[in-house]
Amino acid sequence: MALIVQKYGGTSVGSIDRIQNVARRVAKWRKAGNDVIVVVSAMSGETNRLIELAHSISAHPDPRELDVVASTGEQVTIGLLSMALMELGTRARSYTGGQIRLLTDSTHTKARILKIDEQRIRADLKGGSIVVVAGFQGVDEHGNITTLGRGGSDTSGVALAAALKADECQIFTDVDGVYTTDPRIVPEARRLHKITFEEMLEMAGLGSKVLQIRAVEFAGKYQVRLRVLSSLTEPDIAIDDEAHSGTLITFEEDAQMEDALVSGIAFNRDEAKVSVMGVPDKPGIAFSILDPIAKANIEVDVIVQNIGSEGTTDFSFTVHRNDLARTMDILDKVRKEIGAREVTGDDKICKLGLVGVGMRSHVGVASKMFQALAGEGINIQMVSTSEIKITVVIDEKYMELAVRTLHKAFGLDEEVQAAASD
Amino acid sequence: MALIVQKYGGTSVGSIDRIQNVARRVAKWRKAGNDVIVVVSAMSGETNRLIELAHSISAHPDPRELDVVASTGEQVTIGLLSMALMELGTRARSYTGGQIRLLTDSTHTKARILKIDEQRIRADLKGGSIVVVAGFQGVDEHGNITTLGRGGSDTSGVALAAALKADECQIFTDVDGVYTTDPRIVPEARRLHKITFEEMLEMAGLGSKVLQIRAVEFAGKYQVRLRVLSSLTEPDIAIDDEAHSGTLITFEEDAQMEDALVSGIAFNRDEAKVSVMGVPDKPGIAFSILDPIAKANIEVDVIVQNIGSEGTTDFSFTVHRNDLARTMDILDKVRKEIGAREVTGDDKICKLGLVGVGMRSHVGVASKMFQALAGEGINIQMVSTSEIKITVVIDEKYMELAVRTLHKAFGLDEEVQAAASD
Repeated sequence: MALIVQKYGGTSVGSIDRIQNVARRVAKWRKAGNDVIVVVSAMSGETNRLIELAHSISAHPDPRELDVVASTGEQVTIGLLSMALMELGTRARSYTGGQIRLLTDSTHTKARILKIDEQRIRADLKGGSIVVVAGFQGVDEHGNITTLGRGGSDTSGVALAAALKADECQIFTDVDGVYTTDPRIVPEARRLHKITFEEMLEMAGLGSKVLQIRAVEFAGKYQVRLRVLSSLTEPDIAIDDEAHSGTLITFEEDAQMEDALVSGIAFNRDEAKVSVMGVPDKPGIAFSILDPIAKANIEVDVIVQNIGSEGTTDFSFTVHRNDLARTMDILDKVRKEIGAREVTGDDKICKLGLVGVGMRSHVGVASKMFQALAGEGINIQMVSTSEIKITVVIDEKYMELAVRTLHKAFGLDEEVQAAASD
Repeated sequence: MALIVQKYGGTSVGSIDRIQNVARRVAKWRKAGNDVIVVVSAMSGETNRLIELAHSISAHPDPRELDVVASTGEQVTIGLLSMALMELGTRARSYTGGQIRLLTDSTHTKARILKIDEQRIRADLKGGSIVVVAGFQGVDEHGNITTLGRGGSDTSGVALAAALKADECQIFTDVDGVYTTDPRIVPEARRLHKITFEEMLEMAGLGSKVLQIRAVEFAGKYQVRLRVLSSLTEPDIAIDDEAHSGTLITFEEDAQMEDALVSGIAFNRDEAKVSVMGVPDKPGIAFSILDPIAKANIEVDVIVQNIGSEGTTDFSFTVHRNDLARTMDILDKVRKEIGAREVTGDDKICKLGLVGVGMRSHVGVASKMFQALAGEGINIQMVSTSEIKITVVIDEKYMELAVRTLHKAFGLDEEVQAAASD
């Protein structure tokens, strides 16, 4: 039989009823003979409530103490879920991050996992218990409580699966898998049966919110077989069905995947575009512009530098919309120092990306993309490419139209034969 | 300067405002040059909320998991209070019971403290921090989270004071000290400036709810100087005033105390009286009656056996009212086995006790008490005495009258000169 790690998010454990529902689902996997480790988030709304309490005391709460407060949400859930499992006649034991020495660095509120002591968990599994672990939290080498940042429970689940060499890490969520794009924008969007880690990383990075990007990176690094599936279906469907539902994120590319040029379309409108125009075209200029931004802890995403003319060039990049004002302030100083002509900012943009391992070996994906957008009169403001992704920045008012157009142009509306038989 | 442990209960930290109020009070003691350790309870209502969550999943929640859930209440408070202290410009660090290895036995939901690792706290104090510790909780030798039972935060405070050899343990509560009796019954009731541990134990055992009895025992055992005072007064009164307010519970009897025959009157109406009548008067009969009661985990309080006549005797004792029905069931069987005549139960009683180290060296306290009660036509159903306490059981309808009568008869209405000058 298998060792399975299952992770349930805040919505899945958002009420007593739902916790009992999760318990039935977990118990079913256990009764089928599997060893099961369950990782849970705080009940939905609870983490926000705790953080609001902290902010009503301090505009900038001490990060160490914020973690002490915020980590209680998951601790409540592990206790309640363990009780619910025992009510079903299964054995269960809960652990906080500190209790299993889920060791992280000391970067409070966004710590990184370093190591997990799996001895205690192995002993419990051997004794027939379901092990219930608090997601999102760990402990640093000095015993201080840390948290992994929003969505960190996904990472906890994957890290446990890696440490215990689990056969599969199942991320239960309120969607039933990874889609070709957001079904709210394109009703024809299809669930992907499989996706590679590289594709999933690009999808996540582009705003697909199914899985936390760090969890995907972690799974890729430790070759953890990862599956996204829905916690909202009935817990008493057959395990065989469940074991083949959702979206499997694999580290192996198989023949089927090569068939599709493009696996999905991700997009977001959280970003703003900044351009520094008429920059003297000489070595070191990109550094002069980006270094002060990096020092202000502003994350920069797409970066584009055009070929210059008449000794000057234009340099553009995107930042999170919340950082636009600060970025403009910094660049105002930089502009004078480097003698650039002008700085402009625009937060009415959206970023949109085609993702697919198939495009690696196929030319013409970019031109087909540009042609489809041009056909709808959509102007492309920035382009950036990688081996398996083409990203464009366009006016945000065209976002839905662009996604629908590309979804159709790349045949994502149609069920792929190979995937359907999966 | 001094090392002070301060404990604040749930009402004192029941809202953001009150937490900020506690922070001001604590910071004031720190700024006056003292080392301060603060022990806090969960915000009022929070522990009940958590226990109700557990009970909505299971009628009998697993005790280990109940402790996991219930202990989060204090964890939230320590984080919030530490933030509030930092907002005031003082250094602060919070610790859960597990983080300072507040070691207990493994009796979940009512664990007993075995040891505290004080090294980490000492280092923080040396570094100028206020140390904020979660009350009510500890950890067993296997790292399982335990809780100390209701009111356990008092015990946490005293245990910390003992481990760190603090100069004083201050229990802040919503009353400003220990009174001669409940002021809601006797408006003339006075605050005691000092009381001995023995007296306090008798007061607590008789239903005075100011301090948890285990905390008092602990303080007595480790000779911790204990003071009960109000957290509701303004935090900016002078420390000198505060240091002499409330009630000091001492392990030294001084001359002043000997002046007063009686220090206070405690009472409760939580108990019921059970009598086994016409018991054959032979050795081992008390054991035959009480052993099955003890085996059913029913606590027995006052026990009285009268001198028998005609070869039989009457045996009476009190139990908690909630246990009366079970007790009667058990005694029904016992009655047949031992050949007793009749078993009666009465839950319309109250227990009332005069407490005072002074009565040790004075005859006549009991007779003065009986005379005062007889003067009001109050019949005494049971009497039980110890060195510093006389307990009577009377009809509950006379409770208020009896307390007022005795309060006056023993001069407790008058301010004692010695105490007033304290």
